[in-house]
Amino acid sequence: MLSEEYWLLPEGIEEILPAEAKPLERLRRDILDLFERWGYDLVIPPFVEFMESLLTGAGHDLDLQTFKIIDQISGRLMGVRADMTPQVARIDARNSRGDTPTRFCYSGTVLHTQSDCLHGSRSPWQIGAELYGSAGCGGDAEIIRLALEMFSVAGIPKVYLDLGHVGIYRGLAKQAGLHEAQEAGLFGILQRKATPELRQFVAEQRIDSVVAAMLIALTELNGGSETIVQARKIFTAADAGVRQALDDLEATAECVRQAYPHTPIHFDLAELRGYHYQTGVVFAVFVSGYGREVARGGRYDEIGKVFGRARPATGFSADLKVMARLSERSGIAPERIYAPLAQGDTGLSAEIRQLRQQGRVVIEGLTDNACEATDLACSLRLVKATMETGWELVSVT
Amino acid sequence: MLSEEYWLLPEGIEEILPAEAKPLERLRRDILDLFERWGYDLVIPPFVEFMESLLTGAGHDLDLQTFKIIDQISGRLMGVRADMTPQVARIDARNSRGDTPTRFCYSGTVLHTQSDCLHGSRSPWQIGAELYGSAGCGGDAEIIRLALEMFSVAGIPKVYLDLGHVGIYRGLAKQAGLHEAQEAGLFGILQRKATPELRQFVAEQRIDSVVAAMLIALTELNGGSETIVQARKIFTAADAGVRQALDDLEATAECVRQAYPHTPIHFDLAELRGYHYQTGVVFAVFVSGYGREVARGGRYDEIGKVFGRARPATGFSADLKVMARLSERSGIAPERIYAPLAQGDTGLSAEIRQLRQQGRVVIEGLTDNACEATDLACSLRLVKATMETGWELVSVT
Repeated sequence: MLSEEYWLLPEGIEEILPAEAKPLERLRRDILDLFERWGYDLVIPPFVEFMESLLTGAGHDLDLQTFKIIDQISGRLMGVRADMTPQVARIDARNSRGDTPTRFCYSGTVLHTQSDCLHGSRSPWQIGAELYGSAGCGGDAEIIRLALEMFSVAGIPKVYLDLGHVGIYRGLAKQAGLHEAQEAGLFGILQRKATPELRQFVAEQRIDSVVAAMLIALTELNGGSETIVQARKIFTAADAGVRQALDDLEATAECVRQAYPHTPIHFDLAELRGYHYQTGVVFAVFVSGYGREVARGGRYDEIGKVFGRARPATGFSADLKVMARLSERSGIAPERIYAPLAQGDTGLSAEIRQLRQQGRVVIEGLTDNACEATDLACSLRLVKATMETGWELVSVT
Repeated sequence: MLSEEYWLLPEGIEEILPAEAKPLERLRRDILDLFERWGYDLVIPPFVEFMESLLTGAGHDLDLQTFKIIDQISGRLMGVRADMTPQVARIDARNSRGDTPTRFCYSGTVLHTQSDCLHGSRSPWQIGAELYGSAGCGGDAEIIRLALEMFSVAGIPKVYLDLGHVGIYRGLAKQAGLHEAQEAGLFGILQRKATPELRQFVAEQRIDSVVAAMLIALTELNGGSETIVQARKIFTAADAGVRQALDDLEATAECVRQAYPHTPIHFDLAELRGYHYQTGVVFAVFVSGYGREVARGGRYDEIGKVFGRARPATGFSADLKVMARLSERSGIAPERIYAPLAQGDTGLSAEIRQLRQQGRVVIEGLTDNACEATDLACSLRLVKATMETGWELVSVT
């Protein structure tokens, strides 16, 4: 019983054994290589930081998600990262010079105090890409195309793209004359997609009836490309910002459609996503048969401001462990070669060295157990038929 | 000033920017690939665990090194891993069946509450390999050879091997009749290499003069292969266990010498290393010009006991970030190609796609800025001379 207890891992905290670790590592490499081919430079943000840096611009949700620890050296509160996006934004604000767009990618474990779904992980492996310094739809479209390409590389064919634009909601909230606390309330209601609550809210806050109608209509605006057409009709009385957001959304969708004509695009104009930091186009990638979004991203132009440099920013991330589970790639394990106990046989040692230099997997026998080769899942064995012949590979049977 | 403060990272906590991240990632892959070729299977232990699991068999040093956090779900104390070796031992104890040797490797960030040297890192990137189920010198020798091979792969040519055997010290302590607390005191004195203190200790504890002389002689037993010869003379009155340890040490050294005849071996019989969990041969790899050990390892047979399965165990680990700094490999960055703003040009999009499929790095222009290609460190540019000709690569000048 005692030893059983020592084995227990905390809920939502996983260890990954070889059968899963190998494909995960392969996927990690393939995705980082993809990011590199698109010009995204790898950065490795620290696992812990002072709370002020971690949470800046990120808001309350992330605070609750963050494990806190005391730094014994400074006496200050540190947090274990729960999201790497703000970290990468700080890296950009601190290091990038000039107005040229900067591209970063990253991969690493984050920790959450609570899982965001029942039996979910509290230690997702966040992998993602961020583009700074590009304000236009071209940047948004590049990020979405890269996200879709990531699924293609990962061997996850059936994906759906969910597209929205936070600017529509923000514009309407502004037009309604809401102050910050009111807007936060409305944001919560929309995130919960609670239409009755919304009706009550607009009545209580005495919001102008035209704006109120548009806010209520917002929750219904989801579907295919007809959604944009509908939205244009509904938002004729909306501020210019709202109409601009619609234009941007449509242009972005068009760019993505050109590159991925077969990926279904679903518009959801009330979808706000994320940790309050999004400002423009937002998106999520869904996979057929998996109930939750697998990647999500969007524009968050203001995040760098508190670090001294507000740059346009857009990016996305996914949980590598979820991606690996959904991947349909067949994992071909490399053939393993069993070498008998070498014990000073320099010929055998040289043979082993050479095979390994060729990239082959060679496991050196350490016991006299005849089953060792089979137990170690070796399909080949190094044998020396006679003293005259050299070492050769034979099948283990 | 405010934004300056947000930028500060805690002492000993680093972020890694692209110039360092790329070679680090390459090194990480090369070392994990090496481990795989030797039959070591990748495992990914969790970043946090309950304290009982993390510290089991590891002792007080590791406890002080471990950041603690409260698990909101269970209300129990968790720790952020400060050493991955006990985690991998638990994975072996829990998952391996039968007596066949099992090989695991791993790579990941660990956190320390305090750096173990001035201005040192508190977030080393631990990378290592562990071999379970092999009690003999063959296992120790394999682990040491693999450690040396890791330095070779990493492009760190000038290394020195430091070899010891904890069994010599343990045997003498047993022979001296010390109880646990006394032994811990003696262990501390030897770790500090405090000879005057040692003389005082043996006097105060009234240790038998023959054993006392051997304990004092132990601190002087370091040097080349003559050290073993000397030790045999000095330890003639020692228990059989001490003499067996000497034999094992010599046999292990001989195996290593056969494989790496040019690597200097330095014996240090009073060197105890590590977190109290070592039980047999212990070693460290030093690099010319770097004052501290770069890799360290050894045998720790008893660690799995508390998890219900004590197996022979030996392994090593290093800090990947230190390895990368010492590496003399020249990093050849892949050539970058700049593609002008595509904006619906399907021919250009196809060209970009094709180049990336060939593994080339292509960065898509997002601005009208003529310097964008140079700013993005692209050495080639995609251009279309006339409408008739296709896209071609020209040098950026």
